[in-house]
Amino acid sequence: MPSSHFADRLIAAVERARTPLCVGIDPRLDQLPTGMLERHIAAHPGEPLAAAGEALYEFSSRVLEAVAGEVGVVKIQNAFFEQAGAPGLDAFCRTVRRARELGLIAISDAKRADIGSTSAGYATAHLGAISIGGAEVEVIAADALTVNPYFGSDGVAPFIEEAVRRGRGIFVLVKTSNPSSSELQDLSCGSRPVYERLADRVWEWARVHLGESGYSAVGAVVGATFPQELAKLRAEMPGAIFLVPGFGAQGGKAENTMAAFDEKRRGAVINSSREIIFAYRKPQHQGLPAQRFEEAVLSECRSAKAKLAAALAAR
Amino acid sequence: MPSSHFADRLIAAVERARTPLCVGIDPRLDQLPTGMLERHIAAHPGEPLAAAGEALYEFSSRVLEAVAGEVGVVKIQNAFFEQAGAPGLDAFCRTVRRARELGLIAISDAKRADIGSTSAGYATAHLGAISIGGAEVEVIAADALTVNPYFGSDGVAPFIEEAVRRGRGIFVLVKTSNPSSSELQDLSCGSRPVYERLADRVWEWARVHLGESGYSAVGAVVGATFPQELAKLRAEMPGAIFLVPGFGAQGGKAENTMAAFDEKRRGAVINSSREIIFAYRKPQHQGLPAQRFEEAVLSECRSAKAKLAAALAAR
Repeated sequence: MPSSHFADRLIAAVERARTPLCVGIDPRLDQLPTGMLERHIAAHPGEPLAAAGEALYEFSSRVLEAVAGEVGVVKIQNAFFEQAGAPGLDAFCRTVRRARELGLIAISDAKRADIGSTSAGYATAHLGAISIGGAEVEVIAADALTVNPYFGSDGVAPFIEEAVRRGRGIFVLVKTSNPSSSELQDLSCGSRPVYERLADRVWEWARVHLGESGYSAVGAVVGATFPQELAKLRAEMPGAIFLVPGFGAQGGKAENTMAAFDEKRRGAVINSSREIIFAYRKPQHQGLPAQRFEEAVLSECRSAKAKLAAALAAR
Repeated sequence: MPSSHFADRLIAAVERARTPLCVGIDPRLDQLPTGMLERHIAAHPGEPLAAAGEALYEFSSRVLEAVAGEVGVVKIQNAFFEQAGAPGLDAFCRTVRRARELGLIAISDAKRADIGSTSAGYATAHLGAISIGGAEVEVIAADALTVNPYFGSDGVAPFIEEAVRRGRGIFVLVKTSNPSSSELQDLSCGSRPVYERLADRVWEWARVHLGESGYSAVGAVVGATFPQELAKLRAEMPGAIFLVPGFGAQGGKAENTMAAFDEKRRGAVINSSREIIFAYRKPQHQGLPAQRFEEAVLSECRSAKAKLAAALAAR
């Protein structure tokens, strides 16, 4: 029987797909294929948020169906769904469910955090089940959630507890991919920056939740835009799976992500979002009719896989 | 004409209510008055999340109606609504709207943050309006949002932009009220802890967005559980309004919050959540029928106001 531990499931999904690529579903409403939103607006007169939610779900589920045979892991960005209010969150829940139906590992990229008793609420929403009149109801039911560490251990603990109880996982933000991540994360504490001090703690949280694969249910988010930091952090958190954003549109090259992998060429998933899902907006795909946007998505997904495979082979 | 600047509106609301008390709406589903959830379950057979959403809204709106004549500001905790999925987010949006209809300043306590282009999505959801087919639709439309600073300036900037454009505000987490806040926030950088280095930056963001009152649309979250830090931070961010959690159930006494105020006894709102909204669960209110839970809420709200007033007078 395959292990139900999150890290084992993720590693198996990566092996099965033969790629560490993770496709990021960031459905920006103003970049959907021509006519898609308009069609849902026409179908929902006077209900613009419902129309937006349906458009977000149509786009996201079609991307998922296009890439399901190509990758093992997807990351679904909560912000672009929350913009459409309750219908948007409904679309988010359905998108996560669709990803899991397709056999994909679905990461809820919502970067939640609060004090402990409140974090438990977010943990229930994204990873657990809420008890309502004796019934346990799953809400988002993602395989994993991204978590912000600013509150320290007691803010993170409820996420770990809920994840471990249910064979799910978390990815703690350590070094993010954006230009100003240095402002707080790189502040020097003694001889080491904040993000390395945090890495020590993430590894403390992670090392007690290892699966059969040797990897943990507690992973780390480390941006592809800082390859040197990536290498150092890899050594400091040996069994933590890295979720690496910033490959593709954010400027990280495949070569720059290689330090995220361990000596077995495992232990990391490399995310690309806009570059793949909005591929139909690129000049080389301009002749493609809007209703066939998945062809551009699929082509760009294969190209990203090839770049990672070449970089891994050359490593 | 009264100023539409967020800080001016908040200061005016506090003056009108003659109290800096902010009531925190943290509707934990398992602590609602006896029978309330059950009634909504009966009304929504087979739709447990819809029942939960309706129960959360009934409870929250009744608390708001009970305290509307007593306070000027409320803080609504997103996590307990998100637990109920899309119906929960719908209840959250309606709760924020009800607070504003009652003339209250409504703070969305959702602690959102991401890289810049994604933060813009959350800013739209909580503080702005989404453009759908040419129409601008407000989603949550809170007066202010709590924001996590881990990403640095480019993660925070979209929230400031959206807030300032619409006469709204943000509160950036600086020193949180939970026990393990020290792990990351108190790391020593040179001679000063991380949270003070962050305070410098928050004040840079805040000082360029002052209203007529002399306070900024960019405020800070500083916990009541660390009174010494509070005093230091007050001096370092002179025009930033402090949102102070941790008074009441988290153990902060009224006296301990006094350092949050400036020499004019202004510039802070002091939040109490569980102590007030779940007052009917205390021994002294046990004789109160569940359908009259608001009486306990009102009584505890007045008691919290009196404690703050006495501490302010003794200052």
